[in-house]
Amino acid sequence: MLIQDIILKKRNGHPLSTEEIDFFVKGYTAGVIPDYQASALLMAVWFAQMNERETADLTRAIADSGEIVDLSTIDGVKIDKHSTGGVADTTTLITAPLAAACGGRVAKISGRGLGHTGGTIDKLESIPGLDPMLAMDDFIRVVSACGLAIISQSPNLVPADKLLYGLRDVTGTVDNVSLISSSIMSKKLAAGADVIVLDVKCGNGAFMRSVDQARTLAAMMASIGRQANKPTSVLITDMSQPLGQAVGNALEVEEAIQVLRGEVTGDLKRVALALAAEMLVAAGLSEGIDRAEARLEAALNNGDGLQRLQRMIELLGGDPRVCDDSALLPRAAETVMLKADRAGYLIDIDSVGIGQAAQLLGAGRATKDDTIDPAVGLEVKVRLGDRIEAGMPVAELHVNRRDHLEAAVEKVRGSLTVDDQIPRAPELIYARIRSREE
Amino acid sequence: MLIQDIILKKRNGHPLSTEEIDFFVKGYTAGVIPDYQASALLMAVWFAQMNERETADLTRAIADSGEIVDLSTIDGVKIDKHSTGGVADTTTLITAPLAAACGGRVAKISGRGLGHTGGTIDKLESIPGLDPMLAMDDFIRVVSACGLAIISQSPNLVPADKLLYGLRDVTGTVDNVSLISSSIMSKKLAAGADVIVLDVKCGNGAFMRSVDQARTLAAMMASIGRQANKPTSVLITDMSQPLGQAVGNALEVEEAIQVLRGEVTGDLKRVALALAAEMLVAAGLSEGIDRAEARLEAALNNGDGLQRLQRMIELLGGDPRVCDDSALLPRAAETVMLKADRAGYLIDIDSVGIGQAAQLLGAGRATKDDTIDPAVGLEVKVRLGDRIEAGMPVAELHVNRRDHLEAAVEKVRGSLTVDDQIPRAPELIYARIRSREE
Repeated sequence: MLIQDIILKKRNGHPLSTEEIDFFVKGYTAGVIPDYQASALLMAVWFAQMNERETADLTRAIADSGEIVDLSTIDGVKIDKHSTGGVADTTTLITAPLAAACGGRVAKISGRGLGHTGGTIDKLESIPGLDPMLAMDDFIRVVSACGLAIISQSPNLVPADKLLYGLRDVTGTVDNVSLISSSIMSKKLAAGADVIVLDVKCGNGAFMRSVDQARTLAAMMASIGRQANKPTSVLITDMSQPLGQAVGNALEVEEAIQVLRGEVTGDLKRVALALAAEMLVAAGLSEGIDRAEARLEAALNNGDGLQRLQRMIELLGGDPRVCDDSALLPRAAETVMLKADRAGYLIDIDSVGIGQAAQLLGAGRATKDDTIDPAVGLEVKVRLGDRIEAGMPVAELHVNRRDHLEAAVEKVRGSLTVDDQIPRAPELIYARIRSREE
Repeated sequence: MLIQDIILKKRNGHPLSTEEIDFFVKGYTAGVIPDYQASALLMAVWFAQMNERETADLTRAIADSGEIVDLSTIDGVKIDKHSTGGVADTTTLITAPLAAACGGRVAKISGRGLGHTGGTIDKLESIPGLDPMLAMDDFIRVVSACGLAIISQSPNLVPADKLLYGLRDVTGTVDNVSLISSSIMSKKLAAGADVIVLDVKCGNGAFMRSVDQARTLAAMMASIGRQANKPTSVLITDMSQPLGQAVGNALEVEEAIQVLRGEVTGDLKRVALALAAEMLVAAGLSEGIDRAEARLEAALNNGDGLQRLQRMIELLGGDPRVCDDSALLPRAAETVMLKADRAGYLIDIDSVGIGQAAQLLGAGRATKDDTIDPAVGLEVKVRLGDRIEAGMPVAELHVNRRDHLEAAVEKVRGSLTVDDQIPRAPELIYARIRSREE
């Protein structure tokens, strides 16, 4: 088998065989197939596309390039949950403990944030003492003990994905549905859970700008799950504004705790419950979304959810008292309140701009090697469609270093558009796509 | 300017600017842009195409990557001639001396053969003593002295073309009209002639299988010539059978001499005269093809053409007596005559198979580093449409080493198809495309 022939075959519009896809992924991971042939093939895939079978083969080959986590010693159905990345999206810290409280076994290997979107691992690390770098047997031990564990990705997982992603990033081959979905789903297959629940974000703060794009990606990932015998459910949810109020690591942990304490409701809670319900249904723990949501509400109201989170924090070495006293989380030295300069309706929020403002304050990374400040960030006090009065607080910035403060303020101001017409509020959950029908 | 942005722009179907194309070619030649980004861009070009302006810009950028030959000290209009490569195609050795005899200044930098097609430099090197590796001032001196020089390509010409071709070869991006024509025409622009005549081969022995493909390539190269202010004429000629009889280096030199001596007529002579006539017209030395052909016939009949070739051979250090006595050319140790095993009509010749048979005998190279035997090769004694009788000689093999003889015999036999129906003879010259109308 020659990689040249595989490139030509794909370029000429033919589906690649399972063996050809294996040959490519193995050869590229081993360094036998050079970058320049891999990038030519990726560009040919971008144009000529891959069908569902090819995409599932690519996903499995990428997953098989490294360690496959074996969760079989954990009792029950193991559930993984993943979001394609948004702003103020801390659903994992709400969803996982609630699903665990309802009998789920949530085993999640998570990543760090890059650019305008945050990462769950960064958020967890803002909790004093918490270390998410667990060995696999410790991971299994924590899931078995409290029903959930969220840990940092081991360097032994999906090496092919890291190589391919690095290459795609510099060769104009990121935005292809087969390449995106194989990158996401290979990590889920390698992480070893039995069922997978995905949250595909859609809107100006997400990679997928339109619902149609998001649907295509969701359908492809559900197809991969079906072909890999891993029941997979996908929600397409709105990211045309930050999901919660808080953007920044400790701030988002605090908001998640507030949701679990029943103190905060709204879109963040609604999406988190919808995802957790999907997890229970996919795992066969509830029949139907309505029943699942009722159980989850109960677990929230009786404090079981918060207790699960607290236990996990403790098992990961963190200070569990943060769940009772958020003053134990890192706090920024000062806050700056921004006020509206005119009256009207909030007709647009540039979520990317909000994420970048938080990044400017030190909450995010521009490159992989940047360090982040867990305390800083901002809170967006208004939502799309809100009636705004001049002088009303619209955002609060949590600041340690002032060197980029002015730029961050400008970013936030530029991201909030007030006008006279009442806008139409976006939907929150656009679609639900499952690898198998109930 | 970022190469990533250039890749995305082309991938998304937009024409690249002159500056972007320059940035790519310069950066890639300098090693600043890595292979993997270049190959992604090439694949994007394969799919999204380049328009005529982009292709001319690419050609000029490749030409400018190295030395540009300055022929201005040679009096008169300097003419270059190039063929896209065929089997038994020794037109250059006929065309150049005849055009020189009619007042043309033919300055040709030529290449070596690879695969089933031969190269003019290999053919010239079969002449005892001849050395085609000339410095530029010697090149100019020879053209000035006898009206023509055919020399080997300097390593300082078009370094970007060598790099790009090597990359295209292993990344499935060879067969794109803009990439092919920029590769050919960049060498012509760098070689410094004023007018360019191209022979695009078409048929089973050529890279372009259909007349339509050949027309597209011809039109693009004429467009490049027009944009570079180099009058360019293209003939599309038949390669559905070997053009002459002889395949092999000394054998082809001998056949060219025989044409110039008036001893051999047929398709090789017809195509050579058509190309030479195009050269005279393009250079403004004749008004109209008919007048040009009449002058060329005269130069052939009075021996002027042969004398020009003889003088060039002498100036390149070769033995000029080969023009009078072909026994001075290297000869193979033995000849093997193949005879037809059935009667009928010759309905098909696989020209690639014929070329590969000669290569098996040692006349060609499989890889760049192979050495060739100037004496060996074969003569095809029959042409498409010929009436064949059983036992009639169809091909004569010139053999030194017998180790691949059997395979070569099989190749030749497999390349000649005899059947009962009278086939339609192919056209010889399909089309003439010029960068400017007369």
